[in-house]
Parts: sequence; structure tokens; C-alpha cells
Amino acid sequence: MVVSGEQPTVEGDTGTSKKAAKKAAKAAEKQQKKAEHKAANPQGQAEGPEEDISEGRYGVMKMIQSSGEHQDRVYTNVKDLGVKLDGKNVWVRARLQTSRAKGKQCFAVLRQSCSTVQLLISVSEEKKVSKQMVKFTGNITKESIIDVYATVVKTASPVESCSIQQVELVGSEVWVVSAARAQLPLQIEDAARPERSDDPEALRIRVNQDTRLDNRVLDLRTPANQAIFRIEAGVCRLFRDILTKKGFVEIHTPKIISAASEGGANVFTVSYFKSSAYLAQSPQLYKQMAIAADFDKVFTVGAVFRAEDSNTHRHLTEFVGLDLEMSFTSHYHEVLFTIAGTFTDMFTQLQEQFASEIATVGQQFRVEPFKFLDPPLRLEFPQAIQMLKEAGVTLGEEDDLSTPDEKLLGRLVKAKYDTDFYILDKYPLAVRPFYTMPDPNNPKVSNSYDMFMRGEEILSGAQRIHDPDFLMERAKHHGIDVNKIAAYIESFRLGCPPHAGGGIGLERVVMLYLGLDNIRKTSMFPRDPKRVTP
Amino acid sequence: MVVSGEQPTVEGDTGTSKKAAKKAAKAAEKQQKKAEHKAANPQGQAEGPEEDISEGRYGVMKMIQSSGEHQDRVYTNVKDLGVKLDGKNVWVRARLQTSRAKGKQCFAVLRQSCSTVQLLISVSEEKKVSKQMVKFTGNITKESIIDVYATVVKTASPVESCSIQQVELVGSEVWVVSAARAQLPLQIEDAARPERSDDPEALRIRVNQDTRLDNRVLDLRTPANQAIFRIEAGVCRLFRDILTKKGFVEIHTPKIISAASEGGANVFTVSYFKSSAYLAQSPQLYKQMAIAADFDKVFTVGAVFRAEDSNTHRHLTEFVGLDLEMSFTSHYHEVLFTIAGTFTDMFTQLQEQFASEIATVGQQFRVEPFKFLDPPLRLEFPQAIQMLKEAGVTLGEEDDLSTPDEKLLGRLVKAKYDTDFYILDKYPLAVRPFYTMPDPNNPKVSNSYDMFMRGEEILSGAQRIHDPDFLMERAKHHGIDVNKIAAYIESFRLGCPPHAGGGIGLERVVMLYLGLDNIRKTSMFPRDPKRVTP
Repeated sequence: MVVSGEQPTVEGDTGTSKKAAKKAAKAAEKQQKKAEHKAANPQGQAEGPEEDISEGRYGVMKMIQSSGEHQDRVYTNVKDLGVKLDGKNVWVRARLQTSRAKGKQCFAVLRQSCSTVQLLISVSEEKKVSKQMVKFTGNITKESIIDVYATVVKTASPVESCSIQQVELVGSEVWVVSAARAQLPLQIEDAARPERSDDPEALRIRVNQDTRLDNRVLDLRTPANQAIFRIEAGVCRLFRDILTKKGFVEIHTPKIISAASEGGANVFTVSYFKSSAYLAQSPQLYKQMAIAADFDKVFTVGAVFRAEDSNTHRHLTEFVGLDLEMSFTSHYHEVLFTIAGTFTDMFTQLQEQFASEIATVGQQFRVEPFKFLDPPLRLEFPQAIQMLKEAGVTLGEEDDLSTPDEKLLGRLVKAKYDTDFYILDKYPLAVRPFYTMPDPNNPKVSNSYDMFMRGEEILSGAQRIHDPDFLMERAKHHGIDVNKIAAYIESFRLGCPPHAGGGIGLERVVMLYLGLDNIRKTSMFPRDPKRVTP
Repeated sequence: MVVSGEQPTVEGDTGTSKKAAKKAAKAAEKQQKKAEHKAANPQGQAEGPEEDISEGRYGVMKMIQSSGEHQDRVYTNVKDLGVKLDGKNVWVRARLQTSRAKGKQCFAVLRQSCSTVQLLISVSEEKKVSKQMVKFTGNITKESIIDVYATVVKTASPVESCSIQQVELVGSEVWVVSAARAQLPLQIEDAARPERSDDPEALRIRVNQDTRLDNRVLDLRTPANQAIFRIEAGVCRLFRDILTKKGFVEIHTPKIISAASEGGANVFTVSYFKSSAYLAQSPQLYKQMAIAADFDKVFTVGAVFRAEDSNTHRHLTEFVGLDLEMSFTSHYHEVLFTIAGTFTDMFTQLQEQFASEIATVGQQFRVEPFKFLDPPLRLEFPQAIQMLKEAGVTLGEEDDLSTPDEKLLGRLVKAKYDTDFYILDKYPLAVRPFYTMPDPNNPKVSNSYDMFMRGEEILSGAQRIHDPDFLMERAKHHGIDVNKIAAYIESFRLGCPPHAGGGIGLERVVMLYLGLDNIRKTSMFPRDPKRVTP
């Protein structure tokens, strides 16, 4: 029984110069070609200078084309490897994260999503592992996908460089399923390196954002990214599930629209057969029409487009909107608290269901745990003005908050109430869209609200005007061509209940929940004014 | 106690000429203005010629602006009205579907989504209901939203014209929350009329499709439409839930792309700042990149765009794609049966969870129940060719099926196997996209499949080529500029497991599951070459 606590110095690899990398690449290619040749001509083997006892136990596998071969082979997931499998033989298909052959041994790390395990290929008569096979394994290019037949072996001491620490794999077959190119545009170790300012590794190689995004397929393989996009899927699922339980109906609204309905600025134009159309900046008008069409409570998840030339950490030209709209009986706070409760439920369930993913993100990025109150904190606009004033920032009662104001306010709220999530209610009417319902007691104030996470806005919402004549009046006041929104206004002439709602940016919620610094980290293939690839 | 089995002859209304409708509208408006005046000047009441004992119990309500009024008023849903509430007083907010005042009584039908209940407003000293109030109620425009305070009363005989048949409401307060215009562009009764060819009502007024779509907010209020879009939300939810349970991760793929990657035809162009871009025809390349990025099993739900000038019953220029992609170990049938199992699970759960909605759709449209086998039927292409040949249609082994061939085949399969759902596997390679994996044993055949519902294709899928060199070769064979798909091909140079997947059109699935005849019936705001509004 081979017990090995020895760990290959994986990180040491990073320093490899480009030249050395090229050399290694060539060697690996050569070796692979040789192996491929062997796999294709197993009879030819005898011609070699040395006999290979591992013949037929390693090489490059034929392209998997669903021929029916190996159909009854059962594979074990890396995350399921543990001491209860000690001594058992398993097939594992995984990426070769690193490998290093030294004499008669090759240590490698296999990776599946966020899970890693150590693989040892060691010259052995008993296991029929030859020197050639060890060398072959050492030359497999990083990030290749391989099939390994191996014995699960309990280790004497924990393998600290891997997520599976109590066992390692001692291999007796190694097959390359899909080879990665020898020279990778970025190294996963570099892309995955912790970004803590107090870290001794702070000076080591990192990968800049454009390189990451240009090579997103590789970048997405880091444990943090594997975790981030699973959390994002979770946010989406929880948003829908929580609302579905509250009686909301999911709808789908068109992205191609005939008129730039919401003001006209920042809208992408599409050629539409012999005419042209626009990409919707939000599902606003459509979800309100769904309310007028008796769907009572609706939500929609879908692409939202903004032709805004904003090159900031928090703007995208295409993002995923989580939108909802709900009729209420007497007060828009019925809706406000439904939305806020959806957030607190979501935060609670994220902590419960994604603890390990959140921890994985935390291993690369310094993340303060997200704090929130239940029920959530609701402040009114004048309270915010007052808090800012006390902190030395003076705003008029009809001014909007600037982004720095919002950030400062977030810090003040955190200090005072110990929450990263709060609602700011009763915005000045002047700074909100034309369809926002004014406050019944103060014509300068509106029945509208924003919600914030870590001092950044993630939702904007309001009671909407459901009276068509008043809506016309407000649209005209805002200088909007009412002919362009005729179908929208007409909806309210067909009878419409009072309603309110809001729109959320999915990528912002995930970014701020995790405390990340750039929205491109939470968009799988981000789009901004300068990027439409890959 | 008032017990009333008498039903207003709701349908009789339909014959009303335009002139009469105008007259009625004017009267209603006049009456409403009067009531509004009353509501605004309640003191002025005494000046009227007759004393009104209902003073303060009816009228037009002030626009609901979240003033705090009536915040503790509890409303009862129409669907929850039943004999267990007999004798209780309730507030109900609902649409006035119809109303007819006759002397001292006004019969009305209140509607909430698919549920309807009869309302009786009857002159009564005890309930303080005056002649004026009865007249006012009779003049409220159809489709207005009203608040009613009423007693729940068990009826002597079932109210056949309503979904709530055992009780009716006897009202003592009536308030207009949101008035509909007097002249509606279509009548809900007409839009909801059963479309059975053997129906005695077949000759009565129907609403044509363009009128419906032009006035979609009204059209969507029919019980069938209320049900259809709830079923559609269910299909979407079940698709996601079933796949999530199987370990799939939801992803979001960009709709704005830099190159018309899949052939170049039928793609919409978008102006993108100083350059131009395209709208994605499918998430194909991105979901494959997610597989290369180690997400293992992914799905995505989102808008898909086709600039195809097809004006048929089953084409839209924008639809909702349910896409999935999954890595497999040795055979693409692992994926094929995962997808097929997702469908049968979905069909089973739709029947369980949406029985009442399916029945509601069936009340308007003649729908044969959807039949399927579990496990589902899988045929191979040559079997289909043979079945068609026996039915007199001769196809070559490398020909694709035309739409009429597919329909005929659907009927043959239904007759032979009694299923509305089946899989057709092993399409000719020549008729599939460049990235389709050929069959290992026959170069003219591919590892690809379509799935059909009631003889129409709802999914197209295949094993994809994961070997970059072979993919290049196949792309060149198809005359595709490999420079335009460089990032896509590069993904496979970074190591990629064998994988397969498919794309589903949501609207088609709902249309065919319900046996509807036009895809515009299952798209809330459909887009086709001639329609981008509302």
C-alpha cells in the first residue's frame, strides 16, 4: 500500500519563463504524438528499444464519438473521493491541473470544478506502471482532460494543496481524453491566486481583467469563478422560487420594441427587415401591461440593454434584469415589503445553500460577510439627507443622490444600523420617471424607493400611475411624446388596479452580495462599450 | 335573506349594435361623472331631487395614491368564495365583467383571472341600497375594476354562467377603483367564445387574431389566456427545476454578439456605439464554452432572435429559448435520455399541477389530451423513412424531413405507438450544422436528434464536435469562415469533454402541449416580420 503525504510544489511552476514553457510544450506534444502513435499501433510497440510493461494502460484516447465503447464504465466524482473508498479502484475523469514527474514518480493534481485530488503515478511491477508511463503522465499538458483508473489510498497526512485531503489516487491507467494546447494564455494558478493585500503572495503573478475576459473559458475554471456562477444561478432560482410561492406568475417580455419608449436616450437600434426597431431598456411597460391584463403579480428574468457609454466598475451594456410588478389594494408598501422580504429570504437561503461556494469565493477575494436585518431597514429620503448633512454633505430636498453620496450613505447606515441592505423610500418626484406616482400629501415627493447593497443601488422601484389622464399629464410634463406611448397609456383606459414594482440587476446583486469590485466578475460573458467578445 | 338563482342573460349583450353601445357608453359616463361629483361633494347630495339612502355607499373612488386610507381592509379572492362563507360580509375587488340593471335589481358578473361570481345589487331598505345605486351599478362600464362590500349568499340553484356556482354576492357598497373606457375595442365574451366547429355558437361573433394582438391587454384577460400563460410559466419552471435537480447550472449568455456565427443568414444587426453587432440566433456557442469552462451541465432560458421572413403559424422573430448542454462520459444517449426524461417529467407534472388551467384552455379550444410514453419512444431516421415510404412518401437517406413529412410522420407514429411525443435519432450528417458529430460507423449519419410534439419539431440537438482540428475541418467543409469563429474553436484547444445538448422553443412546447394552432397564442407580446407592437 502506497501512502504518500508528499506534495508536489505546484506553485513553484508559476515562475517558469516563456522559453521554458515553450520547451515543455514541445516535449509534451512530442510525447503525446508518440503515445498517439502507440495507441494507434499497439503491435508496433515491440520495435521500441525498451519493453513497456504499461502497454495498453496509457496514451491518447480515440476521439469519443459515441461508439458504444466503455459504456458500462462507472466514473467517480472527485468530490466524492474519501476514506470510505479507501482501497477501492475507481475511474475518474478530470482535468490535469498540474503534473510533475521526478524519476520514478509523477505527482499530479486532478480537478473537477472546485474539487481537487492528488494523483500519484509511480513505477510499480505490481500495478504494471512503467518509467515510460510516468514520463508520459508528466508530459501531459496542463488543463487536459484525462481518464484515470486508480486505487483510492488514505494519506498519512492531509494533502494541503488539494480540496480532497484525506485520500489520494494511485493510478494504474492514464488516458488523455482531450488535450489542452501546451501554451495556455493564462495559468489557472495565477488566475486563482488570492487577492488579499496582506497576503505574502501579493507580489506574485496575477492575471489582469482583459486577459481573463479575452480567455474567459480558462478564467472561468478557477474555483472562485466556478463558485460565483453557481451562486448567481442560486440568486436567480431563489428570486423566482420565492416569488412563485407568493403567487407571482413568470412572464416573458419582448426585447425588440417599436419605439424607444423610456425617454429615447441610451437605446440600441436594430435593423428590422425593411424598417428599424429598438432593444428594450427594461420590461417596464410590458410588466405593467401584464398587470392591466389581470396577471396580478408578475416577474420576468431576461436581458436588458443600455446603450450607455459608461465605462465603470458597475455598468454593462447588456445585463440580466430581475423585474417584478404587483397590484396592491391600498398602499404601495404592500409591494415594497414584498420585494424587501424577497431579498431577506434570498440572503438567508444563499447563506444556507451556498455556504461552501461563498467560502470558495472568499479564498480568492477578501469578502466581508453580507449583513442584513430581518425585517429590513427602511429609511425615508429626508432621513438620508439628514445623515449625510451630519457627515458634512449638504443636499437639497429635491436633489438626487450621486454615486459617492450613495456610497457614503451606505457606510453611515452600516455604522449606525449594522446592515449591508436597506431601503430608501420617498424619493423626490423630480428625480424619478414620468410614470411615478406622487405622494398624496406632498407634491414634491413620490411613492418611490431604491434598495441598496453595500452602498450601491441594486433596485429602483415605485408605485406607478394607473390613471390614464394623470399619466398623460405627467408624461407631457416630462416632455415625452405621448403618441409614442399610446399603447401603454391605452392599457390604463381598459381598467387597471393600483400597482408598484421594481427592477433589479442580477450581476449587481451577486457582485455586492459577495463584495466583489467589478461587475465583469459576475457576468459570464460581459458586454460593455468596448467589449462584445468572446 | 335574498336567494337568487336567476341569471342575467349575459350572452344576449353581444348582439348590441355599435349605436346602442355608444349610447350606453355615454349614459355610463354621465352617470359616472355624476357619481364622481357626488363623491367629491357629498354635502351637495341634499340638493338632489330625491333623497338617496345609499349616500356614501357607492361612487367613483379617489385615485388610490397610498394615502393610508383603508389600509386594514381585508379583501377576499373570488376563487375563495364558497358556502363556508355563507352569510359573511366580504370586500371583493374585481373586474365588472357584465352588468344589467332591470328595475330594482342589477345583476353583474365579477371576474378575477379565471374566476367569476354573480353580484346582485337590489333595492333594499335593510341594506340601504337605493334605486340610484342600482342604476349607477348598471351603468359602470364593463372591465372596470370595482370594490364591492357584499354578503355571501348560498344560491338555490347553481349559477351556471359563473365559475363560482354555489354562492353569489349581495352587495351593499360599490366603488369604481379604475374605470374602463365605455367602448372597448373587443368584447371579452367574444374573445373567450369556444372555438369548436360543432358548437351551436360557431356562427357568433369572434375576434380575429390581429384585433386580439393589437389589443393584447384586453385579449389576455380571457380565461383561456389567463390559463395559457400560467401554464407557460409552469413549463419554464418545470424545465429549470427538473434540470437543477439533475445537477445542471443555470447560465446567462449574451444576446449581443460580435459576429453572425452560425452561418450568417437570418441575423438582426444592431448599431453598437460606433460599430455594429448582431443579435444571437441561439446560445449554442456560449453554452458549449460553458462546458469547456467546466460547468459540466448547463441550461439557459432567454430571448433568441431570428431575422427570418417566415409568416407561418409557428415562426416568431423573437422567442424564448430553453437551451441545455451537458458533458457525457461515453455516449450521447446519456444526454438524449436526460433531455427526453426532462420532457416526460414535465408532461407528468403539468398534468398534475395545471389540471384546472388545462381544462380552462379546453373550454375555449378543442384540445385532445397530450399523450406520451414513459420512457419515451426513440426512432431512428431509417425507421422514419420506412414508415413514410409505407405511407407513400419516398425520401432519400440523406434528405431532411419537410414540415409536411414531419406532420405525416407524427400521425403515423401516433397511430402506431399512441404517443404525441417522440425522439427521432441519427439524422443524416448532410442536413445538420457543421459542429455536429458524425456517427462513428457511418460517415453519412450523425449523432443528432430532433424531438417532436404532435408532429412538430420542438427540439433539435446533437453531440457536438469537441476536437478542435476535426471541428475546423467540418467548418471548412461547410464553407464557414473559421476566422469568425476563432474564439469558439479555441475553446476546444483548452481541453473540452465530449458533450451534447439541444435547444427548445418555449412557445412551441406550450402551443403543442395544448394543441393550439398558432404560436402567437403562446407568446404574450409576439414578434413576427409584420409585428413589433404593442
